[in-house]
Amino acid sequence: MLKIAIVGATGIVGQQAIVSLLGHPWFKIEKLVASERSAGKKYRDALKDASGSSKWWCTEELPQHIADMMVEEASVFDPTSVDIIFSTMDTAVAKELEPKYAKTTPVISTASAFRYEDDTPILIGGVNMEHAALLAVQQKNRGWKGFISPKSNCTIAGLTVSLKPILDNFGVKQVMMVSQQAMSGAGRTPGLSAMDMTENVVPYIPGEEPKAETEPQKILGKFTGSSISHASFGITATCTRVPVLDGHLVCAFVQTEKPCTPEDVKKAMMNFGKEFAELALPSSPKHLIDVTDGPFRPQPRVDRDNGGGMTVTVGRIRKDPVIENGIKYVCLAHNTKLGAAKGALQTAEYLVKNYLKMV
Amino acid sequence: MLKIAIVGATGIVGQQAIVSLLGHPWFKIEKLVASERSAGKKYRDALKDASGSSKWWCTEELPQHIADMMVEEASVFDPTSVDIIFSTMDTAVAKELEPKYAKTTPVISTASAFRYEDDTPILIGGVNMEHAALLAVQQKNRGWKGFISPKSNCTIAGLTVSLKPILDNFGVKQVMMVSQQAMSGAGRTPGLSAMDMTENVVPYIPGEEPKAETEPQKILGKFTGSSISHASFGITATCTRVPVLDGHLVCAFVQTEKPCTPEDVKKAMMNFGKEFAELALPSSPKHLIDVTDGPFRPQPRVDRDNGGGMTVTVGRIRKDPVIENGIKYVCLAHNTKLGAAKGALQTAEYLVKNYLKMV
Amino acid sequence: MLKIAIVGATGIVGQQAIVSLLGHPWFKIEKLVASERSAGKKYRDALKDASGSSKWWCTEELPQHIADMMVEEASVFDPTSVDIIFSTMDTAVAKELEPKYAKTTPVISTASAFRYEDDTPILIGGVNMEHAALLAVQQKNRGWKGFISPKSNCTIAGLTVSLKPILDNFGVKQVMMVSQQAMSGAGRTPGLSAMDMTENVVPYIPGEEPKAETEPQKILGKFTGSSISHASFGITATCTRVPVLDGHLVCAFVQTEKPCTPEDVKKAMMNFGKEFAELALPSSPKHLIDVTDGPFRPQPRVDRDNGGGMTVTVGRIRKDPVIENGIKYVCLAHNTKLGAAKGALQTAEYLVKNYLKMV
Amino acid sequence: MLKIAIVGATGIVGQQAIVSLLGHPWFKIEKLVASERSAGKKYRDALKDASGSSKWWCTEELPQHIADMMVEEASVFDPTSVDIIFSTMDTAVAKELEPKYAKTTPVISTASAFRYEDDTPILIGGVNMEHAALLAVQQKNRGWKGFISPKSNCTIAGLTVSLKPILDNFGVKQVMMVSQQAMSGAGRTPGLSAMDMTENVVPYIPGEEPKAETEPQKILGKFTGSSISHASFGITATCTRVPVLDGHLVCAFVQTEKPCTPEDVKKAMMNFGKEFAELALPSSPKHLIDVTDGPFRPQPRVDRDNGGGMTVTVGRIRKDPVIENGIKYVCLAHNTKLGAAKGALQTAEYLVKNYLKMV
Repeated sequence: MLKIAIVGATGIVGQQAIVSLLGHPWFKIEKLVASERSAGKKYRDALKDASGSSKWWCTEELPQHIADMMVEEASVFDPTSVDIIFSTMDTAVAKELEPKYAKTTPVISTASAFRYEDDTPILIGGVNMEHAALLAVQQKNRGWKGFISPKSNCTIAGLTVSLKPILDNFGVKQVMMVSQQAMSGAGRTPGLSAMDMTENVVPYIPGEEPKAETEPQKILGKFTGSSISHASFGITATCTRVPVLDGHLVCAFVQTEKPCTPEDVKKAMMNFGKEFAELALPSSPKHLIDVTDGPFRPQPRVDRDNGGGMTVTVGRIRKDPVIENGIKYVCLAHNTKLGAAKGALQTAEYLVKNYLKMV
Repeated sequence: MLKIAIVGATGIVGQQAIVSLLGHPWFKIEKLVASERSAGKKYRDALKDASGSSKWWCTEELPQHIADMMVEEASVFDPTSVDIIFSTMDTAVAKELEPKYAKTTPVISTASAFRYEDDTPILIGGVNMEHAALLAVQQKNRGWKGFISPKSNCTIAGLTVSLKPILDNFGVKQVMMVSQQAMSGAGRTPGLSAMDMTENVVPYIPGEEPKAETEPQKILGKFTGSSISHASFGITATCTRVPVLDGHLVCAFVQTEKPCTPEDVKKAMMNFGKEFAELALPSSPKHLIDVTDGPFRPQPRVDRDNGGGMTVTVGRIRKDPVIENGIKYVCLAHNTKLGAAKGALQTAEYLVKNYLKMV
Repeated sequence: MLKIAIVGATGIVGQQAIVSLLGHPWFKIEKLVASERSAGKKYRDALKDASGSSKWWCTEELPQHIADMMVEEASVFDPTSVDIIFSTMDTAVAKELEPKYAKTTPVISTASAFRYEDDTPILIGGVNMEHAALLAVQQKNRGWKGFISPKSNCTIAGLTVSLKPILDNFGVKQVMMVSQQAMSGAGRTPGLSAMDMTENVVPYIPGEEPKAETEPQKILGKFTGSSISHASFGITATCTRVPVLDGHLVCAFVQTEKPCTPEDVKKAMMNFGKEFAELALPSSPKHLIDVTDGPFRPQPRVDRDNGGGMTVTVGRIRKDPVIENGIKYVCLAHNTKLGAAKGALQTAEYLVKNYLKMV
Repeated sequence: MLKIAIVGATGIVGQQAIVSLLGHPWFKIEKLVASERSAGKKYRDALKDASGSSKWWCTEELPQHIADMMVEEASVFDPTSVDIIFSTMDTAVAKELEPKYAKTTPVISTASAFRYEDDTPILIGGVNMEHAALLAVQQKNRGWKGFISPKSNCTIAGLTVSLKPILDNFGVKQVMMVSQQAMSGAGRTPGLSAMDMTENVVPYIPGEEPKAETEPQKILGKFTGSSISHASFGITATCTRVPVLDGHLVCAFVQTEKPCTPEDVKKAMMNFGKEFAELALPSSPKHLIDVTDGPFRPQPRVDRDNGGGMTVTVGRIRKDPVIENGIKYVCLAHNTKLGAAKGALQTAEYLVKNYLKMV
């Protein structure tokens, strides 16, 4: 069993990382690491707020043996004490600490701190595994024995998976998208206000659109041997927040290079990712994309847990009435599973097995 | 005072028509008309369901004198007993009965039955008042003393208002839109299921997208003297339902003919409709469009009652990063006020004052 | 494996029964039975509504082999073709058909049709298993080889479980309760209106309070050898509906016969049901009651799935400031699991193993 | 016009006080006062958060002339510059500053700081106006020219109004209540988390039950000439939070001294408060209590604005099946109107007109 440290363990993403790792066949949670405030306490106590209530937010029960673990402090944590580090720290802290850890140890990160570095891939399971080779460039550039491998922004995780088979089969010229994002994406301390989110939509999420308009082109780019040549299509996005707990819905309008029918697109999506699925990584779903024929689907509450929250559900694929070579559809991904801790775990599994050959 | 009949008076739109007409300076509710089931009962009794509960859904109180009115039956109602008819019937019934009424009496309709007839305008206050002249063509064609004047689909009421100043100032080439529509748009008997709409989004509304993709071009077309030449731009729409009570939000991406900046668009919108506002119709707001600078606005719950539910609120106007001459923004309109009974009332006021010269 | 028929298989409770039975170690779904409208169709087709959408409402996927089963018609169904019948029919139909089935075959029912018959127990797992003996009286009285064993009303399932250890240890004199009930309790066709249930509470549920005020006394009564002597305490209830998907919360004020402290009550509840748990029935949870110390708990969304939806979660046990020998607390039970199909299944498991000795 | 200062003007209750005072016939907002952080800024700027968004939370528009007012600092504010002070400060600050102001100027307070002092009445319009005489005792005791007059806790505002006619007509022996409280009661900075309040109920509100169990007895007590003799009945309360924006619902079980029927109680409630209504204070509703016959009412979203948010709506009055001389019913009051700023304003109007004789 490989020893894992979760850094940022008291936060919501850290908690989801814990849940994702419970009963894992290859990984064992060896260390829980957090800020000074939590360090030196048992994990169960570090989770308590001023009123004594537990800030354990997952619906899965917190296991006793995890609750009893002593939390270590991130700034003095010894990265060589584990085999892999899961970093779920805030971006500012991640920028400082992840490179320290990466000197000796692989770091799988949910933070955006290193996402836009030229020698850093943004890996999404089954979409761009060949980008993993860029990690060797990163290690060489920076003189690290470990590396930093960040996950993508959660908003475009599902869209990017759905675009990959379209890009491969028909080419992509332009993408227009409107996201309807779940509230869990805004975190928990304090997160969104109930007074703002009750029977309401908030049509702006600070910082989200620029990420949505640039990350997919990197993820869907080509690895040239030393860097990634970004895909050339443009994306325009409007990102909104809706009163949904989990599951980001994206309404996409895609202009392809070559003409294609909705049936073509459906077929391409359903055939997508078979090779990756055959790797049978513990966190991978059977299908990376599930195309539903239900006229009213996908719906966040109903479809988000498809494939253990790791399958992207696509519906309403139809010919666009005005865009040349236009296809429109709706896609849904679980933002705190595929789009966060569990997606990062799937990447870790791939790297450990196929890149690091540790299992 | 002009005598008004509300046909379809027990339905939710009929109820909203009643509320809109309370205390009106020109109009007096003379008759309440509904289906056979309600006919011959006092209005208060016609509203009762099997359990004896009142199906009066407006938050405004139902006035005693309205509650005491006797409901007449639509199929035998005498249209000459009133000056104007508000029809809020279902489309199928409207198709049959509205022409009978229109033989003698002007019919303002919230149904879509006649919306797509060549000799029938779809009037929106301040947007296309010159189309009212088509009613004379309709009267001549059909040998009617009255006419049928339908309101637009509620989804695109706000979008169409917002597009008018863009069209006039910069031309419109193409529109991509995603709507996030309120639940009241689905009616009340039974309307949407609470189990479907709780912390969820339903990404399909039967019949809505075709209307959204074609009505604006008619509304924004040019009256040629005998018919309307539809505007030539294309629209592609994805219409979704969100857990909001009232207020349809539209995320729009507009490609203009001429380049323009967000500031240009803001100015054009803020200058829009002054002439119409000067008519000071009882149901008209001060501003047809209100452009907000709040980064997180417009929001359905917060902004829907702007201008008594008759002002379209626009926000987040910005340059599109990929569409040539592209502008993107978010607009909001109250679907059961501007988009339904009160919007129809505003049209009636215009027609009565400026077309029929009855007041 | 015992052969099971689910009668009323297309309804929401029937669907939940199917889900509860998937992978069951003793039971195999042999027949799906429903009304004439569904009979003769494959189950997947019987679930389709007019628009072709599937009315499968469970979040668990509908397995292929179930979807392919042919639905039989309830009125002509042969009860001898199975070992056990799960009836989830509406009360009116249950009243007519359940006795026909019971002539030959045990019927476990979620309907209230026979709940108030003197020779019919209302069994709740771990609470009143000794009442199962009344089924022999029923069989003798009615000349049936089978029997009808109905589950309790879902509102009081949790309360009744929580009252049992109080009754046994301290006696109960009077109970005041206010329920805050989930929307799933109102069913799905059409169920509650989203316009009624959005940011709202409806303080009345037709027919609910009389059941809440009388069933617990029967369930907690004593079996005398030939009938049940109802418990003598009184209950007063106000039942309300809240915008929650699943999980009925009850705020209870209990006057006990003997004085007791909150600690006494906690201890009694935590010790409760150990013997029943040792039977290790497939659907039973480890703890019938879980007492939480979280000051803000139990909460419906967070705690309803405790013990697979079969554990009652109790919190906020405290001394009442004004009622003599008064204790107040809050309890939560999953209304569509413990309170419906899965609760009925647990009863079936008990009867099959300990009463019928069939496994 | 009397000059008013609102102290705590940037908070949600302060904002509601502003809205309540707009267009008031007797009062004019002369000063806006807040903490050091806001002092010296225009009110519109003091409302802006870090992102530049306005924290004006009322749906009513913020008038220009108010937005332009300069905010003064509470700790150095000169109370003699106004005739009346509305204090909406947090309790800790209120404890320190309200006595300073009261030396010279009447203070109407929404804080609980002085609510439990023996020489301080808790006035509710129409319920206990004779307690106003205690203010003279307070002034004498403390050597103040002004006074402090606090409003009641919002949870029990509606219950207490509904209890008054019962107490006067039939006597009250004991009250059991469960509240279902709106989220606005928890304030706005940050207020409740959307992740906690979505399709959920939180069955605990810190500090609320002790207030609910003691304030009504003071409010409904008798003024003896020098102090208030508290009413002798006991109250037991469970206070819960539900996903409702505004409007606190209380399910009450009342044991009366004398037997009475639901009809008796209805009649007493409907006759209640006529004398007070005849004072025709600007913020008073026509009826202090409205008894509805709708079986599903009162509902928070539908009924909270009854009487401009100042009428208590009572429904479901029925005989209790187990409590001797027991009556049960449901009552609803608008927590941020009757229960906060507007309720305080009504008290101010009474004091100014009938106690201070200033208008």
